[in-house]
Amino acid sequence: MQRLKAAIVGATGMAGQQFVQALSGHPQFEVVAMVSSRTARNYAEALLEPDGASRWTQSSEVPEDMAEVPVVTSEAFRPESVDVIFTAVESDVARELEPRFAATTPTFSTASLFRQEPDTPLMIAGVNHHHAELIRVQQRRRGWKGFVVPIPNCTVTGLAITLKPLADAFGLTRVLMVSMQAVSGAGRSPGVRTLDSLDNILPYIPKEEEKVRSELGKILGRLEGEAIVPTPVPVNAICTRAAVLDGHTEAVFAGLGKAASVAEVKQVLREYRPFAGARLHSAPEEWIHVFDDPFRPQPRRDRELGDGMTTSVGRVEPDPVLGGVKYVLVSHNTKMGAGKGAVLLAEALLEQGVFGG
Amino acid sequence: MQRLKAAIVGATGMAGQQFVQALSGHPQFEVVAMVSSRTARNYAEALLEPDGASRWTQSSEVPEDMAEVPVVTSEAFRPESVDVIFTAVESDVARELEPRFAATTPTFSTASLFRQEPDTPLMIAGVNHHHAELIRVQQRRRGWKGFVVPIPNCTVTGLAITLKPLADAFGLTRVLMVSMQAVSGAGRSPGVRTLDSLDNILPYIPKEEEKVRSELGKILGRLEGEAIVPTPVPVNAICTRAAVLDGHTEAVFAGLGKAASVAEVKQVLREYRPFAGARLHSAPEEWIHVFDDPFRPQPRRDRELGDGMTTSVGRVEPDPVLGGVKYVLVSHNTKMGAGKGAVLLAEALLEQGVFGG
Amino acid sequence: MQRLKAAIVGATGMAGQQFVQALSGHPQFEVVAMVSSRTARNYAEALLEPDGASRWTQSSEVPEDMAEVPVVTSEAFRPESVDVIFTAVESDVARELEPRFAATTPTFSTASLFRQEPDTPLMIAGVNHHHAELIRVQQRRRGWKGFVVPIPNCTVTGLAITLKPLADAFGLTRVLMVSMQAVSGAGRSPGVRTLDSLDNILPYIPKEEEKVRSELGKILGRLEGEAIVPTPVPVNAICTRAAVLDGHTEAVFAGLGKAASVAEVKQVLREYRPFAGARLHSAPEEWIHVFDDPFRPQPRRDRELGDGMTTSVGRVEPDPVLGGVKYVLVSHNTKMGAGKGAVLLAEALLEQGVFGG
Amino acid sequence: MQRLKAAIVGATGMAGQQFVQALSGHPQFEVVAMVSSRTARNYAEALLEPDGASRWTQSSEVPEDMAEVPVVTSEAFRPESVDVIFTAVESDVARELEPRFAATTPTFSTASLFRQEPDTPLMIAGVNHHHAELIRVQQRRRGWKGFVVPIPNCTVTGLAITLKPLADAFGLTRVLMVSMQAVSGAGRSPGVRTLDSLDNILPYIPKEEEKVRSELGKILGRLEGEAIVPTPVPVNAICTRAAVLDGHTEAVFAGLGKAASVAEVKQVLREYRPFAGARLHSAPEEWIHVFDDPFRPQPRRDRELGDGMTTSVGRVEPDPVLGGVKYVLVSHNTKMGAGKGAVLLAEALLEQGVFGG
Repeated sequence: MQRLKAAIVGATGMAGQQFVQALSGHPQFEVVAMVSSRTARNYAEALLEPDGASRWTQSSEVPEDMAEVPVVTSEAFRPESVDVIFTAVESDVARELEPRFAATTPTFSTASLFRQEPDTPLMIAGVNHHHAELIRVQQRRRGWKGFVVPIPNCTVTGLAITLKPLADAFGLTRVLMVSMQAVSGAGRSPGVRTLDSLDNILPYIPKEEEKVRSELGKILGRLEGEAIVPTPVPVNAICTRAAVLDGHTEAVFAGLGKAASVAEVKQVLREYRPFAGARLHSAPEEWIHVFDDPFRPQPRRDRELGDGMTTSVGRVEPDPVLGGVKYVLVSHNTKMGAGKGAVLLAEALLEQGVFGG
Repeated sequence: MQRLKAAIVGATGMAGQQFVQALSGHPQFEVVAMVSSRTARNYAEALLEPDGASRWTQSSEVPEDMAEVPVVTSEAFRPESVDVIFTAVESDVARELEPRFAATTPTFSTASLFRQEPDTPLMIAGVNHHHAELIRVQQRRRGWKGFVVPIPNCTVTGLAITLKPLADAFGLTRVLMVSMQAVSGAGRSPGVRTLDSLDNILPYIPKEEEKVRSELGKILGRLEGEAIVPTPVPVNAICTRAAVLDGHTEAVFAGLGKAASVAEVKQVLREYRPFAGARLHSAPEEWIHVFDDPFRPQPRRDRELGDGMTTSVGRVEPDPVLGGVKYVLVSHNTKMGAGKGAVLLAEALLEQGVFGG
Repeated sequence: MQRLKAAIVGATGMAGQQFVQALSGHPQFEVVAMVSSRTARNYAEALLEPDGASRWTQSSEVPEDMAEVPVVTSEAFRPESVDVIFTAVESDVARELEPRFAATTPTFSTASLFRQEPDTPLMIAGVNHHHAELIRVQQRRRGWKGFVVPIPNCTVTGLAITLKPLADAFGLTRVLMVSMQAVSGAGRSPGVRTLDSLDNILPYIPKEEEKVRSELGKILGRLEGEAIVPTPVPVNAICTRAAVLDGHTEAVFAGLGKAASVAEVKQVLREYRPFAGARLHSAPEEWIHVFDDPFRPQPRRDRELGDGMTTSVGRVEPDPVLGGVKYVLVSHNTKMGAGKGAVLLAEALLEQGVFGG
Repeated sequence: MQRLKAAIVGATGMAGQQFVQALSGHPQFEVVAMVSSRTARNYAEALLEPDGASRWTQSSEVPEDMAEVPVVTSEAFRPESVDVIFTAVESDVARELEPRFAATTPTFSTASLFRQEPDTPLMIAGVNHHHAELIRVQQRRRGWKGFVVPIPNCTVTGLAITLKPLADAFGLTRVLMVSMQAVSGAGRSPGVRTLDSLDNILPYIPKEEEKVRSELGKILGRLEGEAIVPTPVPVNAICTRAAVLDGHTEAVFAGLGKAASVAEVKQVLREYRPFAGARLHSAPEEWIHVFDDPFRPQPRRDRELGDGMTTSVGRVEPDPVLGGVKYVLVSHNTKMGAGKGAVLLAEALLEQGVFGG
């Protein structure tokens, strides 16, 4: 089968590099162009700083199949020359580029710009792919041949993935969450200073708690006609930053609509298998791994489970205060919660026939 | 005024060192004896390891007035030779020593042994000193001339201090808490391994969440006749360990009995002034410091406020889920939550005339 | 080809776990027995703590082909039942076990016990395999059918690997080294406490600098008759501990016997290819990776190069003080410097026909 | 005595904040003006970010006597209105401002701009105050009524302080140093990213090693006529960055001109007492503290000795390779190595009558 032509926008930034890793050697997508504000012949060159340092911050080396991909500016880039676009840019840049791209080409975005647009689904593969119907509404209303679908904030991802099977099986009444987030979520420039993180917890991440509430509400919401009605379940969060490189840890209290034993909750989480019929390239074998060892999950030890695509859960215990359960989850914020999660979503929509046909 | 003669038991361990610091230069207590299983002439010598290293782990040096204090074994120590005893030993040692000490001498303990004894108050200075009445019950029932009063687990301290004024002003309906605890709370041997803490969060601290529930319940409880009736407010917690040296950070959701604005909640916390009439030596000027800066409190920057005796609070915001407020607190686990907190409690009971008269 | 039967001794400790990883799926060695003081049916069971925690501390999971390997005590273990033994035990246990094992069976050891025995080579694969001749002397003198060969301290490994080609090409006159060592080198129990490592450097590692001098001297020494004459090159070191999980960083000043440009030094390091004729299973493609980027090597980013078997070098610059070069190296202390390095050595000696024939 | 009027330039940056701390409550200097590019009425206001956060990064709070000091822009600032100026600005800003200030007013600078000017001394209080004679040359040649004196790079400070008494007592033949530097040395914007520091060592700090060589050479040099002849002692360094907040650790090998026992070296270091006749406000009681405990000095435990002005030394042992000694030092890079060190230098030059008369 011919691979679809793909472009990565913002390819030299940290989020862009995560797309580069996720798309290296991909069986369905072939990266044929990178878009960057850095002038360079190809990707390898674009990563090089004047002082000899490399902008590449991932633990493995720059993938060989990516080093020679040509790099162009956004002005020079013609979106109709590719079949799919993955964007990893700040909101102000997204505002300028994404509508232009979406006019012709399916676009998957890590930016927050479109997340709360009424005609746009906010999607996590395996959680709410039925919201994909809204894409047709977006296309029709805006007169686009392509579309833009954003993924949520990385803090929402693991929370939504673990709450979805609980909501389906038992119903949700209330959710309270405290996150201990990794520094990679803050990006590279400036990122989180060692002066702020070492021997410390930062008790605040601007706008994060708001995003948890509103994005989770939309993801767990119901598609009615041409709009998504957010879930009525009350949600609140306190989001903090810890000295962890990758992997958000979240402590969750979830009120359940009906009584459920710890064993039943664990079983529901363990048996969660979206896409039963389709084996997607970036999907993990286990969507949710539930530990019985009370000292797990730990971000450093468990973030790479399923190559960063499995959500790890542990400490499942009854919570009488909300009438449900408490648990701790670890979700890889720069894999499932970022570029690789967006690639998985593209695979799912391709499988569903939303594009690529 | 003549100072009371004091002894520190377990003086070379980390908790014991905190008593040593807290009692150095104290105007009311004069440390005349240290009890340790390490054979040595005096305290300076007892801290010395065979390889030339020092067991002293505090940031300042060994106080000069403590270096020469004689060290004796528990067998050789005569509790009746002092007016007050501060113990910092493990539960199994406490089981052997504390009843022997309490038979003759007022004893303040950081051990958990007596915390849930029905005839024993579990006390934090400034929070529930009215529970001190129970001491007479303990003395009468056990035939002791002295007594033993434990302080709670360090994770409970900051939580109880901040919930107490809220309970008094607004009433409490429910409490959920997630802690990110400092490694010093785990002691020195073995303590928390770097292999477990670096680039990581440990999601479990054995027995800690149980202690939060039961100890908070007793502290906020009501003295009825000769017993304390625990508060009926449902409480739950998830306790984690972060790579922080000192200072427990706790994210709290508290349901309130009546509507209260953020401004009112802040005011009640800021105005909390127990011991209005008495200026105790170890008490901070501010019991609770409330930040408006959303990036505070941070354990590294704020743990030393009030020389480690002030509880810092920030991020006060409404919480519609529990119908109350959410906030983040930082409490110095090895000062207010340990030895120095026990010394402050002794000062308070001395002031109340419970002993020393 | 039939695989040789292998046993791992001390298999549940951290060093033993590194052998377990290194031997999983090995084409030449089949692990048929584990020796441990922990009573258990098999390896998976032996790793389980009573509180549900796992002793396994490696980042990947317990290899499937190892979980079912039977575990026996050292008393029950019959060394003659296997073809090769890998030991990862403390010196006092080694003193009892290793001579008993070596009497019948080739034994590769991470313990320091035999390192300075005159009839025993101290070996690193690719650096001094010609010292293997001494094994026949050891067997003859001690009447052993097997033998014991130790690998050096992990701090010596990267230093020896990088100095060897320099010594061969230019001669060495003097060496000064300062190490910033990872905490995993200190093992698990008690290991390095977070209280000692966080926001800190420990300036001393007992006996380490002595080992660097004496072990490097022996490894770079010359085999004369039935003894190794240590290299006369003066060596000194200051060994420190940093808050790094894995990967020792070493800053080296090396005086050279003849003038060499930076380009020549880099070329000699890059072209270092021992075992040209044989492709050993655990050997990296690149023995030494030389960076031109001045910000490399970094332990976190580069320790896994060549699956932990490549030594990374950077910052190569002239050093006029010693008349030679300065450079920084990173060596994976728990792979090339530990179990996997010992397995590579076994592969090399097998290839050389020293055993297995 | 009337205090001299002082201004702090660059007062809201990290280096400027260190001046603010060092000059709070100073008996000889009264801060009457702050210069900053941030528009604000006073210092407290200038520290406030729009989002409510504070730019203040020191562990103690903003000193009360500084909060109300007026803040002006550099254009509005009249240098002749004060008696002494302390500057903490980047080199490009220094280039514009420092000559203008020095034309009328004594100026102490943490910038590197003037460090290698032939008519300018590069000074550390207690090490080379005799170089102050060069100030008259600077004034005469440039026609200035004031002057500018820079302090060296913070990495040089502890090295020069410890080498100076060794040079005086024994002579120096060669010096090799490896630093493990704190992140605070890199400032605040962007500073060192957690993504680069956590679980890591950065092997390179641009230009740092060059500065160690050239600045140490000048400081230990001899004033001949109207110029300083750098010391001929060959010096080299490898400068690395570690995950430490404050306090540079340096491992030093020093060749000595004549044989000296470890005891003699320790004695010379311990007895180092510059300014015997004068007790300067910012000077520590002990200039160099020598530990016998081999596990010291450690940056976290020892950086605050002498309120950050004492240089700590340990691990003193013979080094046969260079024919001298090896040792480890810790020097507080943002106190003795920065603002407070510059204030101490101003106190010394005031005492010597170089200005203020």
